[in-house]
Amino acid sequence: MARFATLTFFKMKNFIVASTSTVFGGNYLDYLTEEMAELFKNTNEVIFIPYARPGGISHDEYTTKAAKAFEKIGKKLIGLHTFSNPVEAIKNAKGVFTGGGNTFVLVDALYRLELMQPLREAIFNGLPYMGTSAGSNICGTSMQTTNDMPIVYPPSFKTLGVIPFNLNPHYLDPNPESTHMGETRETRIAEFHTQNTVPVVGLREGSWLRVKGDEIKLKGKLEARVFEQGKAPYEVATGTIMNF
Amino acid sequence: MARFATLTFFKMKNFIVASTSTVFGGNYLDYLTEEMAELFKNTNEVIFIPYARPGGISHDEYTTKAAKAFEKIGKKLIGLHTFSNPVEAIKNAKGVFTGGGNTFVLVDALYRLELMQPLREAIFNGLPYMGTSAGSNICGTSMQTTNDMPIVYPPSFKTLGVIPFNLNPHYLDPNPESTHMGETRETRIAEFHTQNTVPVVGLREGSWLRVKGDEIKLKGKLEARVFEQGKAPYEVATGTIMNF
Repeated sequence: MARFATLTFFKMKNFIVASTSTVFGGNYLDYLTEEMAELFKNTNEVIFIPYARPGGISHDEYTTKAAKAFEKIGKKLIGLHTFSNPVEAIKNAKGVFTGGGNTFVLVDALYRLELMQPLREAIFNGLPYMGTSAGSNICGTSMQTTNDMPIVYPPSFKTLGVIPFNLNPHYLDPNPESTHMGETRETRIAEFHTQNTVPVVGLREGSWLRVKGDEIKLKGKLEARVFEQGKAPYEVATGTIMNF
Repeated sequence: MARFATLTFFKMKNFIVASTSTVFGGNYLDYLTEEMAELFKNTNEVIFIPYARPGGISHDEYTTKAAKAFEKIGKKLIGLHTFSNPVEAIKNAKGVFTGGGNTFVLVDALYRLELMQPLREAIFNGLPYMGTSAGSNICGTSMQTTNDMPIVYPPSFKTLGVIPFNLNPHYLDPNPESTHMGETRETRIAEFHTQNTVPVVGLREGSWLRVKGDEIKLKGKLEARVFEQGKAPYEVATGTIMNF
């Protein structure tokens, strides 16, 4: 019985999907320190997926930056780009963190290196995973509600699908004082729903989803905005279990 | 000699690439009325490409909206979606206008209907063409500096290439008071240049490019912002001939 219980536990999904790495006025990952420490409590080493390369930063530079935040919780962060066999590295990983940047560049790299499927399987099998921004976008069924520019052409927009909806990280409310005539975020997501049926969760900065097994809980101080095809968008309070 | 001169004239590129259809506080296409009247002076019928479908509006509704603006300059606007053979319609067109909306949806439709090449050839051969927003994005070498969400997966990001650079319509300056941690437009374009070499012109709302032959002139009241790989971004004044 004890062994069965352990195996069951190991198979439970266990991950964090965060809107942003950094809240205004804070330091990189600071607001997530407690959650990260809890998520990665059973390992001293976490693998970092640096491919989204914010601002075109190098994989090494990005890993150095993220490693400093992980040092604060006593964890060693190792860039996936330093492994000769990244697929094996993901299969053997005890914890994975994917940083933000450009989602098209990230998804293109994951397909090129044949990492999408192994990463998906690992997360379904209980791998402690954390994503911020682009690293969160890939947890949805597709990357089609990203805010990023299509600076490369990935072989597909399909992503990990470890949550049964799509995300819009850095969700931004319309500014009633704006004179800008470009589409608001809400209009863009409404356009998504003219072509797709999957719900979209707009995660404001400082919000994250904590996934344990099949429970997906909204955390942080703010509400999230939910968009379902054919319905008016609505707000959900922090602490809400997200199932629709 | 007279005949030769006429043919040469006919082969000159002749089009308008506008940042937006509507400036704040104005009506649809109002600020472009004079330019449109001059561009389409030799025809009474203009074909409308409605595929970008802003907000998911139907092709018919969108055509009706745009047709009202063309009525003011005495032109009949006919939706390309009403032709049984859209490729032939483009080949026979005396004027074409492509409206804004979602660039991914527009580009996907142009490829599916095999219209990209015929439209490119027609514009190179002197077809009076006007694009706004998504309809302008497609004039660049690729759609990879669009602001739109990737709500469909087009077969390619390559576009008409009738101007030798890319566009960023609705160009938006960073807001120094913003606490939002998502990337600014300038950061996104800098990321584009980590992967691509083609220059990008950020066209602010109310600005447009008037192309006659190989001359590309910036028009409207505002400056445009130019991004070249490996250089600091810079401003160019209205009236500037854009060649780099």
